[in-house]
Amino acid sequence: MASVHPDLEAQMATAIRVLAMDAVEAAKSGHPGAPMGMADVAAVLFNRFIRIDPADDKWPDRDRFVMSAGHGSMLVYAIHHMLGYDDMPMDQLRAFRQLGSRTAGHPEYGHAKGIETTTGPLGQGISTAVGMALAERMMNARFGDDLVDHWTYVICGDGCLMEGISHEAIDFAGHQRLGRLIVLWDDNRITIDGGTELSTSTDQQARFAASGWHVQAVDGHDRDSVARAIQAAREDERPSMIACRTVIGFGAPNKQGSHDVHGAPLGAAEIAAAREHLGWSHEPFVLPDDILGSWRNVAARGAAARAAWQERLTNSPLTAEFSAMLAAPDAARLREAIATHVAALAADRPKVATRKSSEMALEVVNATLPNTVGGSADLTGSNNTRTKGMTAVTDVDRSGRYIHYGIREHGMAAAMNGIALHGGLIPYGGTFLAFSDYSRPAIRLGALMGVPVVHVMTHDSIGLGEDGPTHQPVEQVAALRAIPNLLVFRPADAIETAEAWEIALTAPHTPSVLCLSRQNLPTLRADAGENLTRQGAYTLRETDGPRDVTLIATGSEVEIALAAADLLAAQGVRAAVVSAPSFELFVARPAPEREAVLGQAPRIGIEALIRQGWDGLFLRPGDGFIGMTGFGASAPAPDLYRHFGITAEATAELANQLIRGGK
Amino acid sequence: MASVHPDLEAQMATAIRVLAMDAVEAAKSGHPGAPMGMADVAAVLFNRFIRIDPADDKWPDRDRFVMSAGHGSMLVYAIHHMLGYDDMPMDQLRAFRQLGSRTAGHPEYGHAKGIETTTGPLGQGISTAVGMALAERMMNARFGDDLVDHWTYVICGDGCLMEGISHEAIDFAGHQRLGRLIVLWDDNRITIDGGTELSTSTDQQARFAASGWHVQAVDGHDRDSVARAIQAAREDERPSMIACRTVIGFGAPNKQGSHDVHGAPLGAAEIAAAREHLGWSHEPFVLPDDILGSWRNVAARGAAARAAWQERLTNSPLTAEFSAMLAAPDAARLREAIATHVAALAADRPKVATRKSSEMALEVVNATLPNTVGGSADLTGSNNTRTKGMTAVTDVDRSGRYIHYGIREHGMAAAMNGIALHGGLIPYGGTFLAFSDYSRPAIRLGALMGVPVVHVMTHDSIGLGEDGPTHQPVEQVAALRAIPNLLVFRPADAIETAEAWEIALTAPHTPSVLCLSRQNLPTLRADAGENLTRQGAYTLRETDGPRDVTLIATGSEVEIALAAADLLAAQGVRAAVVSAPSFELFVARPAPEREAVLGQAPRIGIEALIRQGWDGLFLRPGDGFIGMTGFGASAPAPDLYRHFGITAEATAELANQLIRGGK
Repeated sequence: MASVHPDLEAQMATAIRVLAMDAVEAAKSGHPGAPMGMADVAAVLFNRFIRIDPADDKWPDRDRFVMSAGHGSMLVYAIHHMLGYDDMPMDQLRAFRQLGSRTAGHPEYGHAKGIETTTGPLGQGISTAVGMALAERMMNARFGDDLVDHWTYVICGDGCLMEGISHEAIDFAGHQRLGRLIVLWDDNRITIDGGTELSTSTDQQARFAASGWHVQAVDGHDRDSVARAIQAAREDERPSMIACRTVIGFGAPNKQGSHDVHGAPLGAAEIAAAREHLGWSHEPFVLPDDILGSWRNVAARGAAARAAWQERLTNSPLTAEFSAMLAAPDAARLREAIATHVAALAADRPKVATRKSSEMALEVVNATLPNTVGGSADLTGSNNTRTKGMTAVTDVDRSGRYIHYGIREHGMAAAMNGIALHGGLIPYGGTFLAFSDYSRPAIRLGALMGVPVVHVMTHDSIGLGEDGPTHQPVEQVAALRAIPNLLVFRPADAIETAEAWEIALTAPHTPSVLCLSRQNLPTLRADAGENLTRQGAYTLRETDGPRDVTLIATGSEVEIALAAADLLAAQGVRAAVVSAPSFELFVARPAPEREAVLGQAPRIGIEALIRQGWDGLFLRPGDGFIGMTGFGASAPAPDLYRHFGITAEATAELANQLIRGGK
Repeated sequence: MASVHPDLEAQMATAIRVLAMDAVEAAKSGHPGAPMGMADVAAVLFNRFIRIDPADDKWPDRDRFVMSAGHGSMLVYAIHHMLGYDDMPMDQLRAFRQLGSRTAGHPEYGHAKGIETTTGPLGQGISTAVGMALAERMMNARFGDDLVDHWTYVICGDGCLMEGISHEAIDFAGHQRLGRLIVLWDDNRITIDGGTELSTSTDQQARFAASGWHVQAVDGHDRDSVARAIQAAREDERPSMIACRTVIGFGAPNKQGSHDVHGAPLGAAEIAAAREHLGWSHEPFVLPDDILGSWRNVAARGAAARAAWQERLTNSPLTAEFSAMLAAPDAARLREAIATHVAALAADRPKVATRKSSEMALEVVNATLPNTVGGSADLTGSNNTRTKGMTAVTDVDRSGRYIHYGIREHGMAAAMNGIALHGGLIPYGGTFLAFSDYSRPAIRLGALMGVPVVHVMTHDSIGLGEDGPTHQPVEQVAALRAIPNLLVFRPADAIETAEAWEIALTAPHTPSVLCLSRQNLPTLRADAGENLTRQGAYTLRETDGPRDVTLIATGSEVEIALAAADLLAAQGVRAAVVSAPSFELFVARPAPEREAVLGQAPRIGIEALIRQGWDGLFLRPGDGFIGMTGFGASAPAPDLYRHFGITAEATAELANQLIRGGK
């Protein structure tokens, strides 16, 4: 704990409050309540504990600070301005919530330095932070205290703790004994609708304790108590939750403590009253030097710590290894390894499920890249995410590379975001594709942030069979393709699966979803040269002479397209087959290239899912589609394919209809 | 508690075990572990407590039984067969998991009598049951113990309790003191990946207690202990959780207690060993009369209870009112009320946000239908879901019609499913549309079951402004349109909003989502006759003479389409405007009708969302689209519309390009 000038620290807190209320007022929208309520806690945390260097916002051993209650973004921006981040001049605070400013309504990762993760959708911050805290310990296990020895601090509110994902995060963090994680709960007993007594009775301290956390409660406006609690939290080996009893909007004399102060400007009169109440005589967006100086001292402490760390790194025998872990994956090495693997596949032609193909690719990936970290939401044997020799990451041994995320799809996806954001490790994790619905908010947040994680989603259609419609994806692939900046792959065989893994792992700012079959599929490609999956869609089988029809399929249905083409050939119909493992990559190609692949003959799309997303990209008016129009059913997979008419015979019949119709 | 023959009750449990292992073996897939592990608990629950009548599976005052661990479906099917449900003959058990059978891999609501809700996606069952238990108390508050006095029992596993949604359900149920809810936790300490120690350390009893539940722990194979615990649970006023310590796959001597027995057939040898171990000499799918008789006694007890209830209903002064509550909403009365409201709107032409229009419609709806129940996930003032005079449903007064669901979108959606499934009440609930991602698994389950609930989703585009991309839906509407059997409305004004409410509330087997604006929108329609929203899309403004272009828009963008048509008219270009509030309803119309609305001129779709879903239905190759291609940004809404080029000017310019291009 750093030494403290009590009056100045109080004013450091006041400065947060005033900047927050003034910026919200200028924006005519925003949330003054949380920054004003948690200003004392934040002032103590930064003034006495946090170790960051605004001059190097990517310093690997910096403490991580996550404002899980993202609507309180002005707390972050105010602090970042005062710490001296060079991209956060006062003009940015004046432009809070305006177009083009870095000071977005909620903190956006990548918009401004020092924002460790995007928050706003409640519960995401605390759950992402769990991934960061786990990554810290995993990197510590590899590189020791000299190089990795930092803390993850979270400010969260009642909303974060009511959201279901918080349970997944808290349970997991407690189980993993993530002692470097400290959660400061803004216990203001106010939600948007009114007092928390409207909707919750949970004893949060007891709840956290039930999951193995260290818990404390303090007056969130008694700074020394807050400091003692943070110190005690650091000394305990368990993750810590500190219930900070606060008054929302603290300092606004007529509105504080009420939900009115949560999400609306205070208004000129109340701001004037607050200025008087807080003893703050400065104009909006003006800070006295002594207070600014106190904040700059925090930055200076961080800069010194970073310099010391830099020297330790320079003198470390692990420098090269550490830097390699933090660097982007070695794309050339990975390409070579995957190419060798693909060549072997082209020769061996295995008939395996693509979930198994994925495991085979991962054997290569995990041997090539030292920092991939696998896992599953309790479906390891079904997702095939654990390769040979991977040991589990546990509370007593973080040297492993496999994470048992538990039955927590949402928490897993958020934790993977956090691991990736932390740096040094490349996370992938598995569940059933139908349950991508559970993890969707975190998948979306990863796409919005541009975080390279890989979601392994197996059992990707009615092809999973007997588990029935609750487990059978029908619309999930379309829904995932709808998310901007997300690569969705549905590979047709072992070769495309390996290619998809290569692309996913080398996409620097885009998460990926691999949609993989439960059922066995033959190896379809004979060539082992270029990564054709990178084209998004490509001609797998061309016709001799002009095409009569083009069959376009993905994943397990490419086999059906080929069989249909055989049937048609026997009838004298020339059918080309296009495999389309990634719509997003195909969209990115120039239109003439796309037209060349798809041709001018009638087209049929084949995918054991709904049609949404096919029209416009692959299909024109009059073209056909073989797929699903509603939910699936419980039965063996072959029965379902016949029942829903997703067969080579149905495809050939439709092709003949289209060809006749066109004549 | 009924009197018990201990030996027969033991054999009642054994019968569940044997039927489960034999059916899974016959199907060559399925989950024997949970039914065998929980057979004793289930035998006690049914034999001594549950009050249902297989001869009337819709008896309103029946106890509800929810197998939240839906993979253990054979427990349900075995019991239903033995109770004598007429649609569950032994042939159905023989056809477990086969095409066309009622015995789907997971229990499917509507497939067989007595299945109260579809389960399988973990955590849904317990969360849906919370809605049922709340509905029971709300109906009790209205009709008293004579007519409404039943229990909701849930069997759940570790998976259900690890999923985040369980936290939302448990917190909410504890807060509402739903004493009629009894959760039997299959505490077998096994998950698919292995022992629960791989992924969780949470003390579940402490966790439930922290949320105000009554908790007990028993040996799940000691039937008298189980019975005493259930009795104690019934006597406590809080919701109860009973941790039933069990051995998964109990009775399979070589495999029980291991994750091997969770989700795969036991195999012939182990089944033979289990038969010997359990002292069961009967052939597969053969039951001795005495055991069957014991189960039939349970049914007889239920039949007697139902007869007594029927007599109470007949003699009750509330008979008519009770029957009216349980019947489908009075469509004619609602139509009339909405028509009157729409006529007033057409005259008054208010300029209000459609979220406000929704509130105005709800004032009419809630005055017309006595059994609508509103709520919000802590965004009441933003979602506008609470109409005048609606009082909150609390733990001490369940007579109200408004539910503070807390910051629990997922739990809210599941609870709404449960309220609707219970019968008697029509639930609607609000949140921001971006957070439909949080509730998506429950929305999907409602669509799969065909449960008529209404999701009120406000702040439906970048039009929400400053809160930024985390809160701005871009792909959510497309993703919702992708879900089968879900009506998605994006009304353009107060009239369409009222029409959408009428359709949503009278769709008997389809849930609805209303996507509503934050920003004000003018009333666009002048006519107040037919419900045009029912057409899905209709011509709002026709041209004089042949169309040069057709502008098709939804929601807040219809105003832009009209402004663009005005701009174009000034340039001598004839632009028709089509409003398309529901894609699903438009798809359902015959193709010639659709073509007549859309015309042959070039078309432009306008929606401040992604394009997915527009092609094929509205747009052809060469047609244009004005909308989003990626995530939004934080700024005032007008700035964002300009920034992303979603303006009348941009639309007019694109129209001119298309018209020139076509010439």
